[in-house]
Amino acid sequence: SFANCGLPYFVGDLIESEEDLLVATPELFRQRFRIDVRLGHEVLAVDRGKSEIEVREISTGKLYREAYDALVLSPGADPLRPPLPGIDLPGVFTLRTIPDGRQIKEWILEKHVREALIIGGGFIGLEMAENLFRRGIRVTILEAADQILPPFDREMTARMREHLESREMTLLLGDPVSGFEKNSEGRLVVSSKSGKKIETDMALLSIGIRPENRLAKQSGLEIGERGGIRVDEGMQTSDSKIWAVGDVAEKTDFVTKEPAMIPLAGPANRQGRTAADRIFGRPVKFRGAQGTAVCKALETVCAITGAGEKTLRRMNIPYEKAYIHANHHAGYYPGAKSLTLKLLFSPSGGQILGAQATGEEGVEKRIDVIAMALQKKATVYDLEEAELCYAPQFGSAKDPVNIAGMVAANALRGDAPLSQWDRLDWEKDFLLDVRTSGEFEKKHAPKAVHIPLHQLRERVSELPRDRDIHVYCGVGQRAHNAVRLLRLKGFRAFNLSGGIRTYLDSL
Amino acid sequence: SFANCGLPYFVGDLIESEEDLLVATPELFRQRFRIDVRLGHEVLAVDRGKSEIEVREISTGKLYREAYDALVLSPGADPLRPPLPGIDLPGVFTLRTIPDGRQIKEWILEKHVREALIIGGGFIGLEMAENLFRRGIRVTILEAADQILPPFDREMTARMREHLESREMTLLLGDPVSGFEKNSEGRLVVSSKSGKKIETDMALLSIGIRPENRLAKQSGLEIGERGGIRVDEGMQTSDSKIWAVGDVAEKTDFVTKEPAMIPLAGPANRQGRTAADRIFGRPVKFRGAQGTAVCKALETVCAITGAGEKTLRRMNIPYEKAYIHANHHAGYYPGAKSLTLKLLFSPSGGQILGAQATGEEGVEKRIDVIAMALQKKATVYDLEEAELCYAPQFGSAKDPVNIAGMVAANALRGDAPLSQWDRLDWEKDFLLDVRTSGEFEKKHAPKAVHIPLHQLRERVSELPRDRDIHVYCGVGQRAHNAVRLLRLKGFRAFNLSGGIRTYLDSL
Repeated sequence: SFANCGLPYFVGDLIESEEDLLVATPELFRQRFRIDVRLGHEVLAVDRGKSEIEVREISTGKLYREAYDALVLSPGADPLRPPLPGIDLPGVFTLRTIPDGRQIKEWILEKHVREALIIGGGFIGLEMAENLFRRGIRVTILEAADQILPPFDREMTARMREHLESREMTLLLGDPVSGFEKNSEGRLVVSSKSGKKIETDMALLSIGIRPENRLAKQSGLEIGERGGIRVDEGMQTSDSKIWAVGDVAEKTDFVTKEPAMIPLAGPANRQGRTAADRIFGRPVKFRGAQGTAVCKALETVCAITGAGEKTLRRMNIPYEKAYIHANHHAGYYPGAKSLTLKLLFSPSGGQILGAQATGEEGVEKRIDVIAMALQKKATVYDLEEAELCYAPQFGSAKDPVNIAGMVAANALRGDAPLSQWDRLDWEKDFLLDVRTSGEFEKKHAPKAVHIPLHQLRERVSELPRDRDIHVYCGVGQRAHNAVRLLRLKGFRAFNLSGGIRTYLDSL
Repeated sequence: SFANCGLPYFVGDLIESEEDLLVATPELFRQRFRIDVRLGHEVLAVDRGKSEIEVREISTGKLYREAYDALVLSPGADPLRPPLPGIDLPGVFTLRTIPDGRQIKEWILEKHVREALIIGGGFIGLEMAENLFRRGIRVTILEAADQILPPFDREMTARMREHLESREMTLLLGDPVSGFEKNSEGRLVVSSKSGKKIETDMALLSIGIRPENRLAKQSGLEIGERGGIRVDEGMQTSDSKIWAVGDVAEKTDFVTKEPAMIPLAGPANRQGRTAADRIFGRPVKFRGAQGTAVCKALETVCAITGAGEKTLRRMNIPYEKAYIHANHHAGYYPGAKSLTLKLLFSPSGGQILGAQATGEEGVEKRIDVIAMALQKKATVYDLEEAELCYAPQFGSAKDPVNIAGMVAANALRGDAPLSQWDRLDWEKDFLLDVRTSGEFEKKHAPKAVHIPLHQLRERVSELPRDRDIHVYCGVGQRAHNAVRLLRLKGFRAFNLSGGIRTYLDSL
């Protein structure tokens, strides 16, 4: 058992010794629990009829059979290596195991690596980008999608993308890798579908993973659409004597209830415990996986729980959304950092469906609180009322979680309905910017009419009474005041959620 | 409106300008909301019969009356200043307002303050201790109770106490202040009940607050036992046209359901919104206050939500408790800090009653997650299953919140029952220490029998089958393994919750 989530930091030399990554040894299992751990033994086949497995000891080639009462499959998942030209060239790496990490480190030292290409801007790709950067290596990221961090909605990744670019990483988005070759100087040249040729000293493939389902398939166990072993709520496979857990097993999505591949350590752990309990007859159930996750790259953090907009749209689940931008702690205390929080919720009833956040500090804390709320089927009204720790170093009397709940609840109650930048009709819709003249001149949305908030009362006659008025400010607070003022005067006003900040993130 | 939670940091010069503490000005209220804010106007009386108030403009002495449809009382609370000898001597301060802070800063500079005495080791006292320390002042804390931070259980404050002492603060606990005098050199001498005489350059009184209930009392409104204005779930006082909010108003304790004084910014904010909604006819209800709070003093943080053991005992509410000590993030990633979490829960059903945590990092995050769980009436089984953010910089695959849930749930399920250091009979109980010989020799509980975990299987015959065996290790994990092993072999084994670490904290 080793800490694979630490591998990028091992490559970055932040974790110095391989031993730090070893969580438990076969000796500990044997001595403490009398569990017989056999390394270097490959299971070749499962004889379901006889309830036996066929095993080969790799070092000797010896074959033997072993009987089981209960069989648990937990082979995990392998990094994807599509059959592209040149994919097996030296210098093209994946990262799953400690030896993988060791090989990358050796290559960096031996080849005096100065440039690296990360193929795939997901969690592992970005963590590796940070760690290679930290070693003084110039990093380029090539990503097939038009955004980094695919589980997130695109606009919530804008801040991290900008941050990485500001640290002189190159991000090539919307451009899949197409092949690898060596040039005359012996350097690696990676081609992309759009025709780019990227010369580099090494490439890391981090474009996703594939469940290690060979044995399960061979044994005729039911396999889901995305290759995961199908399991019931007790982790039992289609064979009542076989259980599957971890990245190889499907997990029920907590929000959508569909089977999903969610390769995260927390749910894997819970599946393991669930299977153990069930094997011993306890009627526990796996509650589903929320997909709660966090990724840090240099100074920027992105965190998520529950369903994103892409999933909700695909599943035709009705949702509303609210964006807020707030300080991670009281603004009057030194060091406050801006944090963006997006809340997805049911338009009827306000049940939380998901949340995403980005910023430098306190990001994962807010997602953890909302993850707990989501598990308990809480609503945006519960977030409004959440009573969280406040001292100026840690939060505010109204925490960002409260503010997100308030914005959503105000919208659902009809006090301050929201509109959304990505649903505007840019030709027809009436936009009102209530910021100061200085702010307006610096940057504003196309065709926006400008009336600063402090003049609004006197100038309402300039506004149309027969149209929806989409009001925005910097982040949403002044627009909220404007919307309330206008609504009380009978206008059809909406707060363009997240203000100009979300507009810019969405570009 | 000013940020009174920032005052200690203003005294410490961390917040440099008074203006940073101003949240909203009368001008902003007037211009943005047409709210008429009158500073320097004192309400002398409420004429409930006529629904009028009597006001005096302080600068001119002018008296006038003002009619109301709804009256909201939010005068807050004053620092306690008991009528002790010499309490009005120069150099004896309290801290409630910006001018209070300014006076302390001026005194420090004018008198070249090198030593300060903080009377009362609560939140404000400890925050002031940090800030005076930061200015190079030698700090002594005099506290009537036998612990600092009275809302916490005593053992959960041990770590902060030790930390402050390690930074050369002097903590005098269990010793109330009795008086103040000036000595011949003009220095302040503070006496304590035990007879101590503490010479100092200044004293800060932070022994608690008193609701500002003068006007409410005068008007014949119902007042609670602890001086707070009694309000219903809509913040309405005993007069149907008068509401009260904030530190002057009682708040229903979320866990115990009794009226309580909980002077915190979050609940005060919520009470304000509740009153406003109710005045305008919305049927909202204040859900009660959990007392979620956090205090940082130098590098140590203490955070709390819900009921503490003292309250539960006083109210005769059945409870069980679990202590865990865990790293605030993955141990293999550099910078992991130890964190202690105490969970209080119902022995029937496992409902969360409260939680307290202490450590350096990630302390308030865990309490925030549990605060959200508490609001949703979650159980320890829900904490077990909580899906929280994990990357090595932020947490672990099993977060401390999960581990606390597991320990509690394992106890309730009977898999690994807990016992408690403070309930041991030191004469009769059988204690088993399963740590290594090195650890045992360094420090162990009186009369403990020592069998290291790795020898336990072979040496079970040395243990009694007819007695409860209280097993402990460093923090509780090895003891858990030992308890499981012994229980499976038929022994009556219990895990002494929190291990030797909690034993030492409880001394």
